[in-house]
Amino acid sequence: MDMPVIKALTDALGADAVISREDLAQRAVGYWNPNPTTARALVRPKTTEQVSQVLTICQQHQQPVITQGGNTGCVQGSEANPEEIILSLERMKSIEDIDVTGGTATVQAGITLEEVHNRMAQAGLLFPLDLGARGTCTIGGNVATNAGGINVLRYGMMRNLVLGLEAVLSDGTIVSSMNHMLKNNAGFDLKQLMIGTEGTLGVVTRVVLKLFPQPLSCHTALVAMDSFDNVVSLLTTLQRDLAGTLSAYEVMWQNYFYAVTGEGGHRAPMDREYPYYVVLECEGADPQADGERFERVLEKAFEDSVIVDAVIPKSETERRAIWDIRENFEPLLETQPAYVYDVSLPIRNMHDYIEQVTAGVERRWPGGRCYVLGHIADGNLHLFVKPGEQGDFHYQSDEEVYEPLTQYAGSVSAEHGIGKEKKQWLQHSRTAVEIELMKSLKNL
Amino acid sequence: MDMPVIKALTDALGADAVISREDLAQRAVGYWNPNPTTARALVRPKTTEQVSQVLTICQQHQQPVITQGGNTGCVQGSEANPEEIILSLERMKSIEDIDVTGGTATVQAGITLEEVHNRMAQAGLLFPLDLGARGTCTIGGNVATNAGGINVLRYGMMRNLVLGLEAVLSDGTIVSSMNHMLKNNAGFDLKQLMIGTEGTLGVVTRVVLKLFPQPLSCHTALVAMDSFDNVVSLLTTLQRDLAGTLSAYEVMWQNYFYAVTGEGGHRAPMDREYPYYVVLECEGADPQADGERFERVLEKAFEDSVIVDAVIPKSETERRAIWDIRENFEPLLETQPAYVYDVSLPIRNMHDYIEQVTAGVERRWPGGRCYVLGHIADGNLHLFVKPGEQGDFHYQSDEEVYEPLTQYAGSVSAEHGIGKEKKQWLQHSRTAVEIELMKSLKNL
Repeated sequence: MDMPVIKALTDALGADAVISREDLAQRAVGYWNPNPTTARALVRPKTTEQVSQVLTICQQHQQPVITQGGNTGCVQGSEANPEEIILSLERMKSIEDIDVTGGTATVQAGITLEEVHNRMAQAGLLFPLDLGARGTCTIGGNVATNAGGINVLRYGMMRNLVLGLEAVLSDGTIVSSMNHMLKNNAGFDLKQLMIGTEGTLGVVTRVVLKLFPQPLSCHTALVAMDSFDNVVSLLTTLQRDLAGTLSAYEVMWQNYFYAVTGEGGHRAPMDREYPYYVVLECEGADPQADGERFERVLEKAFEDSVIVDAVIPKSETERRAIWDIRENFEPLLETQPAYVYDVSLPIRNMHDYIEQVTAGVERRWPGGRCYVLGHIADGNLHLFVKPGEQGDFHYQSDEEVYEPLTQYAGSVSAEHGIGKEKKQWLQHSRTAVEIELMKSLKNL
Repeated sequence: MDMPVIKALTDALGADAVISREDLAQRAVGYWNPNPTTARALVRPKTTEQVSQVLTICQQHQQPVITQGGNTGCVQGSEANPEEIILSLERMKSIEDIDVTGGTATVQAGITLEEVHNRMAQAGLLFPLDLGARGTCTIGGNVATNAGGINVLRYGMMRNLVLGLEAVLSDGTIVSSMNHMLKNNAGFDLKQLMIGTEGTLGVVTRVVLKLFPQPLSCHTALVAMDSFDNVVSLLTTLQRDLAGTLSAYEVMWQNYFYAVTGEGGHRAPMDREYPYYVVLECEGADPQADGERFERVLEKAFEDSVIVDAVIPKSETERRAIWDIRENFEPLLETQPAYVYDVSLPIRNMHDYIEQVTAGVERRWPGGRCYVLGHIADGNLHLFVKPGEQGDFHYQSDEEVYEPLTQYAGSVSAEHGIGKEKKQWLQHSRTAVEIELMKSLKNL
């Protein structure tokens, strides 16, 4: 016997829109959690109006709802409780309009990031947000979490790439701010309230994206360095000398690089014992001139002993293999527990901070290790803490990572969001006045 | 005999912080209005704590307050009523910190944009927001209005250039979000509520700005074109072929160019009868290679008949003279009335829109003229409507400019804000649901 809320949803949207509790057991919770999904049901609207209907019906039945995009988040933001209904955007994947002249695309929020990349490339355009989960994560999820990724230093985060959006509030009200202009200062910019608030203020249903010309050249290198000072110095040099074409500068600490390469992992294209490795990439419009400049700048860095080793891929396969070292860290996750972090702090404090966390982890667990990589130009580091022994050490690990962050005014979430996982740590990054304001906004 | 609120302010901040109604008559209302300032008083705090004191005291006395930065706004947002007290940030001009490594500067909100440009340039850094009012407008005003200007197509608007800020709410509460990181997703991004809300939600007191490397090369040209299609086509070509170094693309319609050049105006460096003119600029890191590429791209545009004439300045004086045509439109304001507009709409609709407005203006007033220029890459046009006869035609002029905008989902304010002037036109750009939400936020 169906519950009244399930019956109302089925009547409104049709039987194929509602997946029952039993059938949901076939679905994994998400990328990071292979357990079966447990929820009251999952409902799959096709249009904004249907999303509005779902939320109206659920509010009438006092039924809690959780929204799901691609389920690749790291902070349990889209994990359902057994008594929740999942609102999935998986049938809202269409591209409604591409304006080549204006450089905009209008899409439904359930489309994957990779699908947007591919469709825009066919039109000679670039949507520059990019991250490892591209094949699964959705545009709506990218908006809800204000996603970052590997091209932020050139193009900014998702917030900078969204011109307009439409969202549905918890009572079913549709708020449409489908602006197509780079500039619109007519009153408050309400879309800013939806971006990065992880669905707490509404469900994003349609988005106007900002596009760029597809670059005509791409040059990549993997370089090794002796000190963090040199890592910073090379970044400064490249930002100046590559004149805005630098699109990625991804740093790996020695023990991260070592752990994901070698037996059972990726092939290492150079020695595995250098203190720091960087994957860097620049995208321009003049393949030959850009390539010459790229090599000239790297040669100079070599002469100045800023870099001590470098590999330039000679094919797309070799390029992909270098990026895989950075993006595919599954070798690190083979032994558990492994706790994943996403923090931000000023570049000038990064070296000291990582020393402190590493010392703390090694002090607490004899076999403990802290593996580090990050988008340092964005002030953003990812840490993997592995205690090296069995047990639930999540809270202790959090303490080691978050406590030292306070003195640098760092943030417990750079790009992954807060979700359920980090709620108790929010006070480390935000003042009581700020948290009070967030609560008032949510109530409103 | 002083009013109690004036006495309380004088007691709290000192006599030199308070300027009386009588002395205020010496001050002009602002750049666009030479009349004397009329207000109950003007108070000039030096610190955030003093701003908080001012707002607390004024709230206790139920005294309305209006905040002033550089008074260069175009929408009467900072004009006081006779019974208001003006809160001026003019004594809050210090630069508290420059982090060269991290690319950030921490400043008080009353500093002028030009002072920030100059001080950053001394440190080899660039703060890229730029607009004609640079010598007078303040960083706080730039934040409050989410300022745009001439470099938006490369660097974005003020919203993209603010990493953190501190503001004081109307009850004196200090909200500090002095983030220094490019990424911080720990909870709602509250600073987004302050940016572009024109002081309606709080007074911005300190700001963390995002900086870029100072470019090493700068190439400028003034080009002429036969059709708007070619104006758009050249923009698309430059965005692709100059690989992210294009920093300005400023379009002038024929009658604007004609009106500000010639006798009594600027010297015209080319024929004054071309349908469109563009000032374009690219900034890079390699003076020689960038210069060669710049000339190559322009030559190709010439061969393809996309441009029909071009002037490349040979000195900084010549470069400044070209920019003056675009930035200094005082010849246009010599005869009044002249109504200034700032609208945004998709590029693909601009040509039709301007035809409509021009026809409407000429239909309504026999000697009526509409002069147009704009940042078209940002979807942003500025219009000057001159009825060509004496009288107050502001409302009629607004009708001619704003009514045709609705069909293109355009905005009545791209970068100037709403102020007092455009309040009644807000409904043309925003839905009733959106305006309701703005009111709720303000009350909160």
